[in-house]
Amino acid sequence: MAADRSTVHGSDLDIVAGNGLLHRRMFLTAGTAAAAAVASSALPNLSAADALPIEPWMKVPGSGFVGYGQPSKYEEKVARTWNTAPGTTGTGAARTPLHLLDGMITPNGVHFERSHSGIPDINPNTHRLLIHGLVKRPLTFTLESLERYPRESRVSFLECGGNGQLLYQKEAAAVGVQAIHGLVSCAEWTGVRLSVLLQEAGVDPKAKWILAEGADAASMSRSIPLAKAMDDALIALYQNGERVRPSNGYPMRLLLPGYEGNMNVKWLRRIKLTEAPTMTKDETSKYTITLPDGKSLQFVLLQEGKSVITRPSPGLTMKEPGLYEISGLAWSGYGKVTKVEVSADGGKSWAKAALQSPVLPKALTRFRIPWRWNGGPAVLQSRATDETGYVQPTREKMIAARGNRTIYHSNAITTWAVSDKGEVKHVYA
Amino acid sequence: MAADRSTVHGSDLDIVAGNGLLHRRMFLTAGTAAAAAVASSALPNLSAADALPIEPWMKVPGSGFVGYGQPSKYEEKVARTWNTAPGTTGTGAARTPLHLLDGMITPNGVHFERSHSGIPDINPNTHRLLIHGLVKRPLTFTLESLERYPRESRVSFLECGGNGQLLYQKEAAAVGVQAIHGLVSCAEWTGVRLSVLLQEAGVDPKAKWILAEGADAASMSRSIPLAKAMDDALIALYQNGERVRPSNGYPMRLLLPGYEGNMNVKWLRRIKLTEAPTMTKDETSKYTITLPDGKSLQFVLLQEGKSVITRPSPGLTMKEPGLYEISGLAWSGYGKVTKVEVSADGGKSWAKAALQSPVLPKALTRFRIPWRWNGGPAVLQSRATDETGYVQPTREKMIAARGNRTIYHSNAITTWAVSDKGEVKHVYA
Repeated sequence: MAADRSTVHGSDLDIVAGNGLLHRRMFLTAGTAAAAAVASSALPNLSAADALPIEPWMKVPGSGFVGYGQPSKYEEKVARTWNTAPGTTGTGAARTPLHLLDGMITPNGVHFERSHSGIPDINPNTHRLLIHGLVKRPLTFTLESLERYPRESRVSFLECGGNGQLLYQKEAAAVGVQAIHGLVSCAEWTGVRLSVLLQEAGVDPKAKWILAEGADAASMSRSIPLAKAMDDALIALYQNGERVRPSNGYPMRLLLPGYEGNMNVKWLRRIKLTEAPTMTKDETSKYTITLPDGKSLQFVLLQEGKSVITRPSPGLTMKEPGLYEISGLAWSGYGKVTKVEVSADGGKSWAKAALQSPVLPKALTRFRIPWRWNGGPAVLQSRATDETGYVQPTREKMIAARGNRTIYHSNAITTWAVSDKGEVKHVYA
Repeated sequence: MAADRSTVHGSDLDIVAGNGLLHRRMFLTAGTAAAAAVASSALPNLSAADALPIEPWMKVPGSGFVGYGQPSKYEEKVARTWNTAPGTTGTGAARTPLHLLDGMITPNGVHFERSHSGIPDINPNTHRLLIHGLVKRPLTFTLESLERYPRESRVSFLECGGNGQLLYQKEAAAVGVQAIHGLVSCAEWTGVRLSVLLQEAGVDPKAKWILAEGADAASMSRSIPLAKAMDDALIALYQNGERVRPSNGYPMRLLLPGYEGNMNVKWLRRIKLTEAPTMTKDETSKYTITLPDGKSLQFVLLQEGKSVITRPSPGLTMKEPGLYEISGLAWSGYGKVTKVEVSADGGKSWAKAALQSPVLPKALTRFRIPWRWNGGPAVLQSRATDETGYVQPTREKMIAARGNRTIYHSNAITTWAVSDKGEVKHVYA
């Protein structure tokens, strides 16, 4: 006998906010309690057949080993997408398919990338890192010499300063989470603390900033406060266990946890200690926030608190009423995410989502909440709060504060409308 | 002026155990304290040149975007290695290059794999999971129907029951960490709690075990206590954010945190609830521990506490005396690793290593300790302790308890001898 798909016991599945949001306890309690809640609910399963056919792949020996494996051929849709300016290659940004992933780690194959003149083909044996400027002794490091230094690992998100820029547009773009927010990813990075190398070079007390320069054809370069360099900055050599990928800065990149993506300079070749910001092309012609009055904010270092629902989201159609999981990602450059609230009625009522442990500072945090979709229209939103008390703003608030002459630091609440056909669309609430 | 390579201040770099092991504080204190310790030490860097040549890759635009990226062509050595029986393909095990990785996450491309009849080419659209046996109502799930269920993520190690088996041999094998211990890896797994599905099927009180069967040509199958299935077992759908790789069970595998690798059945197609173990070929002809008296231990479920130094290790030659980082991995199927001690004098004296946070239960834990190599012979070992108080045994103790008629659950301390030429070899202490 197939499970009854219609019974929902209120006592097991407490409604905690409008339009079917259920208590997050389903994800918080271990084992039987959570199971009991779901067991009596409206979840899909197939027939009650007590046997399975022998599939063709069980009748022949499978394929052999390979040194470096790849995803299934059935997963080709799990890929980055990009736009490039006409006549250029590799200049632009390739976005992570957030709606097709789960967990907090972004696999290296689809980590987002932003390149200013393509991906340089660097020979790690001749690549050098120079530390100079206001130091007692300039130092040059090979990859091999860096190998000897003490290392540190940290799970950290990276987000392009221009991620989410479509939310500044007057009309809601008819696209999904990959196109809107796909310039954020998260990995376990391992490398050498920059402070160790700077101390070895001997920091001149006059130094207050560093210039970091990449070995790409654009010589992408940014100025960074020395205080950050002496705090938690890493010369990252490894990404999710293996060497940093070419698209992410092979053989080494700067990692500045919580800072704007482009400041985490890839293909790092040079760090110069300076008294003041260098005012490079990359921090004057772009990555500044033009305000409504025409003035610009420069050196907006930290990515603010933010979240987005990844499932359901545009492209993932819902087929029938019943119990679903709403899931998404939250992050803040200020520290740990402490709360994510979800609304199914366009912000009229909110319920707390469960946060997947471990919740790490300046890392993506997966959130989940059960939802019983009644088959009618719904308006889904998520709102992150971080440990500093920062609350993710509505789009209205963000535009009121910043106008829409900029494309940067868009961290407003994103809204997905679910139609009575189960289609999910990007809208402005 | 180049940095002085010879000065080591005792006050900064406290010697804490024989043969040059230094206090782990270098990895525990943030920023300046750690930096100061290293700054005055004997670490390598190159010339004091104040400029770098413009490399060829800076003179031309780099390459463009790709949907799914790959490692640098210079990293081809970062690959799994394997032995297969003559006349077979894909039957055997492919090992992770632990000595070339860092951090706790194993990238999906080199996660170890153990296959009993190759990797099946499964079509996810026709694959089914059947839950039957001692249940109120047998249930069949498609991948799509499982998509609706609440999910959970956890970072978990997997280790083949036969990992480290070379340590049972009478003579120390002249190989490195990949060949000896490469059948352990760690990933962030995401999926559906098995308990939720079992509750939905309705567990008959007579059921005490489950049978889990794979859809490979070997129909790999194992019996697992129902208590574990109702505790933290997952039907894993995602591995480090993306769909489980074919070599790791695409489209779904069982994840039993802490349990012997093979019990985490890949390509999972069937779970049958039973009163007693099924006694499949995979739990009678193998994966039992034959004791010196000829009796066998069956259902040795949990992988015991263990650790190994990955750097330095055989194949990674040390070029000159000075400061190095000793780094490795520790794990325990019983829970969290609480302590890793390192010896540089073959176990005469021990010093505590720093544990990289976050330290997660039943996950790989990276440890690090600074070491000043004086250029003479050294004998390196690591020893893990977990939260249950379990201490990793010496090889002598392990053999005394189990004999060497088995190849399973080898968790003894591994010893690397460093010669005065900087060569690293596997030896028995």
